[in-house]
Amino acid sequence: MSFKKQLNWRYATKRMNGQKVDEVKFQNILDAIQLAPTSLGLQPFSVIVVKDQETRKKMAPACSNQPQITEADAILVFAAWNKISEQDAEGYIHNIASTRNIPAEALNDFKQMILGLINSKSQEDLLIWSSKQAYIALGFGLFAAALEEVDTTPMEGFSPEALDEVLELDKKGLKSVVILAVGHRDAANDYLNGAAKVRRSANDFFIHI
Amino acid sequence: MSFKKQLNWRYATKRMNGQKVDEVKFQNILDAIQLAPTSLGLQPFSVIVVKDQETRKKMAPACSNQPQITEADAILVFAAWNKISEQDAEGYIHNIASTRNIPAEALNDFKQMILGLINSKSQEDLLIWSSKQAYIALGFGLFAAALEEVDTTPMEGFSPEALDEVLELDKKGLKSVVILAVGHRDAANDYLNGAAKVRRSANDFFIHI
Repeated sequence: MSFKKQLNWRYATKRMNGQKVDEVKFQNILDAIQLAPTSLGLQPFSVIVVKDQETRKKMAPACSNQPQITEADAILVFAAWNKISEQDAEGYIHNIASTRNIPAEALNDFKQMILGLINSKSQEDLLIWSSKQAYIALGFGLFAAALEEVDTTPMEGFSPEALDEVLELDKKGLKSVVILAVGHRDAANDYLNGAAKVRRSANDFFIHI
Repeated sequence: MSFKKQLNWRYATKRMNGQKVDEVKFQNILDAIQLAPTSLGLQPFSVIVVKDQETRKKMAPACSNQPQITEADAILVFAAWNKISEQDAEGYIHNIASTRNIPAEALNDFKQMILGLINSKSQEDLLIWSSKQAYIALGFGLFAAALEEVDTTPMEGFSPEALDEVLELDKKGLKSVVILAVGHRDAANDYLNGAAKVRRSANDFFIHI
């Protein structure tokens, strides 16, 4: 399976052409994001899938008016839980118990471990931790899209506060942490299309022991 | 390409059997990690590839003596730059210029953007930012390994300070942020082998607008 060819094909697309992404491919990308592992399996974030063009126009100013916001087929906003409660841990334990058909009581040690982690961190540190988990899922979305020959742009250049307001994320207990634009490259107008990929050399990037 | 089947095949392997990972597969996993995108393309972290068993034995106490540390074929330690200097930005600009055969001066605006970002953040915030970039690469490593039917365990349960000391990362200007154990499952002894995958439902995890 030549995934390396596909990872070389992808790049942070600067201009997209508005073309729709095939529905099956798009769903596969979402499935990959949902399947991404997270610490303790908690998945402490949600993914807002914005296809509505009016909403995206409202999002654009919060995103430095980068053209992908409206030129992509969909904008995925990875938004971390703004706090993690005992109830969240309970809900997760019940999900494991019902999925694996085991009594919730059998998971008591694991539940205590989750609560221990939640209680050991400040709310700010929990948000950083949740954000990191979202970045694993971002990686899964980027990788899956490359395999599907769907273009993407990971984006940090936005105002989380302004974006949260447009999407009313505060009401949902969420804070935006990173964006993935999903669409198709505008090959003629994207100066990065076809540019050689720049990476640190393996000798510099890897340290072998 | 059924990557979903492979993502369902993978799980956070708790016990590994010490079996070697095929060299081509292992190199493909490293290549995927190196190809992972990062903000501005800066790749502000290194990956320590630890195959040496003596070193791994020394690492184990810093990693709560989790068995994968010695049962895996290799331990990848993602370690963020502990600071980012103007020289780092210069080096990166020169890499782009030589890779794309353009004069470094043509990249002056981009260089100013990088310096602006570096100077706008505290050292602590830069480390958080660099760590998030490392998590994208962690995602790429996890995904690539699943495609290669190689097992992995992403691990946060370690003492970064103790691990940095064992690996002498401070001297290298690095701080460990997350670990990926790479090897093969010990199917008979791993209680999670074959367990149903637990994920939040799509209805809960995705919000469609």
